[in-house]
Amino acid sequence: MSNPPASSLPPPPADRPLPEEAPPPSPDLESRAEAQGITAIADLGHPADLAEHIENLSLKDQMDLLCALPEEDAAGALAEMEEYSRVEILEKLDPDKAAGILGEMSPDDAADVLDELGTAHSDAILDKLGSEDAEEIRQLMAFDPDTAGGAMNTEIVVLEADLTADQAISQLRREIEDKEIPYYAYIVNPGNVLIGVLSLRDLLLLPSRATLGDAVGDQVLITVRGEQGKEEVARLIARYNFMALPVVDGSGRLLGVISHDDVIDIINDLASEDLLGMVGAGQDENVDTPWLESVRMRLPWLLVNTFNSALAAGIVYLFDGSIAQMAFLAVLMPMVANQAGNTGQQALAVIIRQLARERFDPRRAWQYVFREGKIGLLNGLLLGVLAWSGVLLLTSNPSLASVMAGALILDMLLGAMAGASIPLLLKALGRDPAQASSIFLTALTDGAGFFLFLGLATLFLL
Amino acid sequence: MSNPPASSLPPPPADRPLPEEAPPPSPDLESRAEAQGITAIADLGHPADLAEHIENLSLKDQMDLLCALPEEDAAGALAEMEEYSRVEILEKLDPDKAAGILGEMSPDDAADVLDELGTAHSDAILDKLGSEDAEEIRQLMAFDPDTAGGAMNTEIVVLEADLTADQAISQLRREIEDKEIPYYAYIVNPGNVLIGVLSLRDLLLLPSRATLGDAVGDQVLITVRGEQGKEEVARLIARYNFMALPVVDGSGRLLGVISHDDVIDIINDLASEDLLGMVGAGQDENVDTPWLESVRMRLPWLLVNTFNSALAAGIVYLFDGSIAQMAFLAVLMPMVANQAGNTGQQALAVIIRQLARERFDPRRAWQYVFREGKIGLLNGLLLGVLAWSGVLLLTSNPSLASVMAGALILDMLLGAMAGASIPLLLKALGRDPAQASSIFLTALTDGAGFFLFLGLATLFLL
Repeated sequence: MSNPPASSLPPPPADRPLPEEAPPPSPDLESRAEAQGITAIADLGHPADLAEHIENLSLKDQMDLLCALPEEDAAGALAEMEEYSRVEILEKLDPDKAAGILGEMSPDDAADVLDELGTAHSDAILDKLGSEDAEEIRQLMAFDPDTAGGAMNTEIVVLEADLTADQAISQLRREIEDKEIPYYAYIVNPGNVLIGVLSLRDLLLLPSRATLGDAVGDQVLITVRGEQGKEEVARLIARYNFMALPVVDGSGRLLGVISHDDVIDIINDLASEDLLGMVGAGQDENVDTPWLESVRMRLPWLLVNTFNSALAAGIVYLFDGSIAQMAFLAVLMPMVANQAGNTGQQALAVIIRQLARERFDPRRAWQYVFREGKIGLLNGLLLGVLAWSGVLLLTSNPSLASVMAGALILDMLLGAMAGASIPLLLKALGRDPAQASSIFLTALTDGAGFFLFLGLATLFLL
Repeated sequence: MSNPPASSLPPPPADRPLPEEAPPPSPDLESRAEAQGITAIADLGHPADLAEHIENLSLKDQMDLLCALPEEDAAGALAEMEEYSRVEILEKLDPDKAAGILGEMSPDDAADVLDELGTAHSDAILDKLGSEDAEEIRQLMAFDPDTAGGAMNTEIVVLEADLTADQAISQLRREIEDKEIPYYAYIVNPGNVLIGVLSLRDLLLLPSRATLGDAVGDQVLITVRGEQGKEEVARLIARYNFMALPVVDGSGRLLGVISHDDVIDIINDLASEDLLGMVGAGQDENVDTPWLESVRMRLPWLLVNTFNSALAAGIVYLFDGSIAQMAFLAVLMPMVANQAGNTGQQALAVIIRQLARERFDPRRAWQYVFREGKIGLLNGLLLGVLAWSGVLLLTSNPSLASVMAGALILDMLLGAMAGASIPLLLKALGRDPAQASSIFLTALTDGAGFFLFLGLATLFLL
């Protein structure tokens, strides 16, 4: 497969040149794109590419470049940069300049960026912004970033329900320059309560004199409230294949819209939070997180794990007389715990993803646990037979083989049911179903595995 | 917070009634929606809701209902159903009826559904479809479902570059009924090579006599090739915030488009595959997967885990003389392995998510491993001090305390570097970076932990 002819790879549009200070990132990007088999390269002025380019510079060069760029381009790049990089920059940047750049961002991006800064820095910047912009951004900052309100966009097209189609289209033409491309217009009554959504296409197909209120008369709205969690947003969008989801307050008044790019970020963030949270890493860690910050985020869970594994060790200690009599028990004991741990992790992963994608139906919780129990039991029986044969072959001791198989089967059953139960329990308690679930699961399968194996051995072998 | 006034919750549109055979799902859905705090309920005729309703019926009722529904509604519901449910139905359904329903699906959905069936069943259904539809679906089925070609949509608006804006708009008006809402029109040259993309808005703003070719003259295209993986699609869309991504062949000819709802599914699927694959569960498992199928998918990795944990047990066996002399070693030994395992899982999770979201830059691989090593070492030193103090307090044996601390620090360092390396290594080998990574990591941290602890103990204590 060859790349397409060069003619389909025109140069970047001439109207968005990089300033002279910016070393042109093109050759690197181009060769990398080629290596990845991408058949056309990115617009070199795309904010995401510019952000990556900036992040590879020293802090001083980063600041020089951002100050030299047109503020609109600087704003685009800053919105795409990693949190740690841009916090570092904005804490050093003159508040006047910072306000100039943030004023070019969409209000939701600006609110996200300011949320990351200390209050002193963000207040200094907000003071330099126009009072209208500052007020809009402050309102957005009042929402928890993990809620629909914290993720929504406020630059949307809002049309009053009593406009005719012709009046609406004229208004749209006047507004089209300022807003993100309006695929949808949001129709509100005089109290700003959302009563319907029309696509640009719907609007164009309406009879000239029809009012928007009539056009949306029987629409069934799917919306989220500002304080609802991002999980709910992700589930609704994935379920109904929406391109945008309106955000309202408790009285149905329109607050903003979650748009498609926010949704992709939300779904990606939630997937990261699940995987990272499960093992007790920081939920927004990545390879660019300062390493001492990562130590700080992970250490607390490792301390919990110390405590958990000390409990499991305590169980072994109960039986150290048995181990002194038969040191071979210490050889087999970790195998039981390890297999049950892995079995439990499999159940855990399935349930965590289920909770991430679908709404939680408490009536089905027992069914989930029962299903995982069956899987764990059958896998346990199959591996139990294998373990029985293996131990018998090695030791010619049928009692030891039976103790091994019995402990393995019981611990795998327990691990599977615990793996299913832990996230369901956390969810029912209103906690994040993934948080530290792997740590607690391992403590349980270790402790139970040691107890079952050493206990059965003490009863039947010694 | 109260729900909005009832007036903003109109009844479902009268033009999409459920047939009489379908028990109205409304009260249940409404109360559930209320319980979840959603301020407006779903269109009761939405395919996703209908699909959920159908899945809760017995197989016989499922088939009766699907046959009674208008074929368009049946197609919508079937496209939203879980794989296992719809395979069961389609294998029992008369091929004529099945073809009728599949004919109403978009070709990409129909290809996905037929891909799930055995060849005999899918051929029987394809034979009953119109030859043009069948041909289009067969072409889509030729793509691996995990590639861009396998996920793309072919019902798109394609316009020739030599059309004027006026001609294009007339053509669009004629086609608008058959296609999914065309936010974008794809502009091709006479050889069907994609040369640009115009939004509906761009088209409307063009001067009447401008040709589309002129309008897209200097566009830089970002596309994927049909055979590229879904991971690449997800990364490009997330990076550039696109709403749709064109799919081309090796010569740049337009094949189809990945649209926003496909992207959300792709990102969700990849997140599931990472988490499930890591622990050796089936990558598309969920709570509705038949349990025996789950046993079949998980058992092979549990067998690998048996082998891995037998190796770790073999290491303990090397030292069973030491354990016979000092049974307390068997108490502390699992704590070393468990802490290092958890440390490694944290590194593993960060790197797997990094690889899922960003392009893999091999030059940075060592930097990732080094960073995780530093984190593992510092956390190891801190927990090592804790372990040293704890063991000294319990046993008054400073040599044992030092052996414990030393083994813990070394195994945590190793675990962190292995956790970072395993997915990078799998990626470099062209494998899925998540697949079974947790299983191999645990084997390594267990084996190394036992070896370090028992080896140091044998050297310095006995």
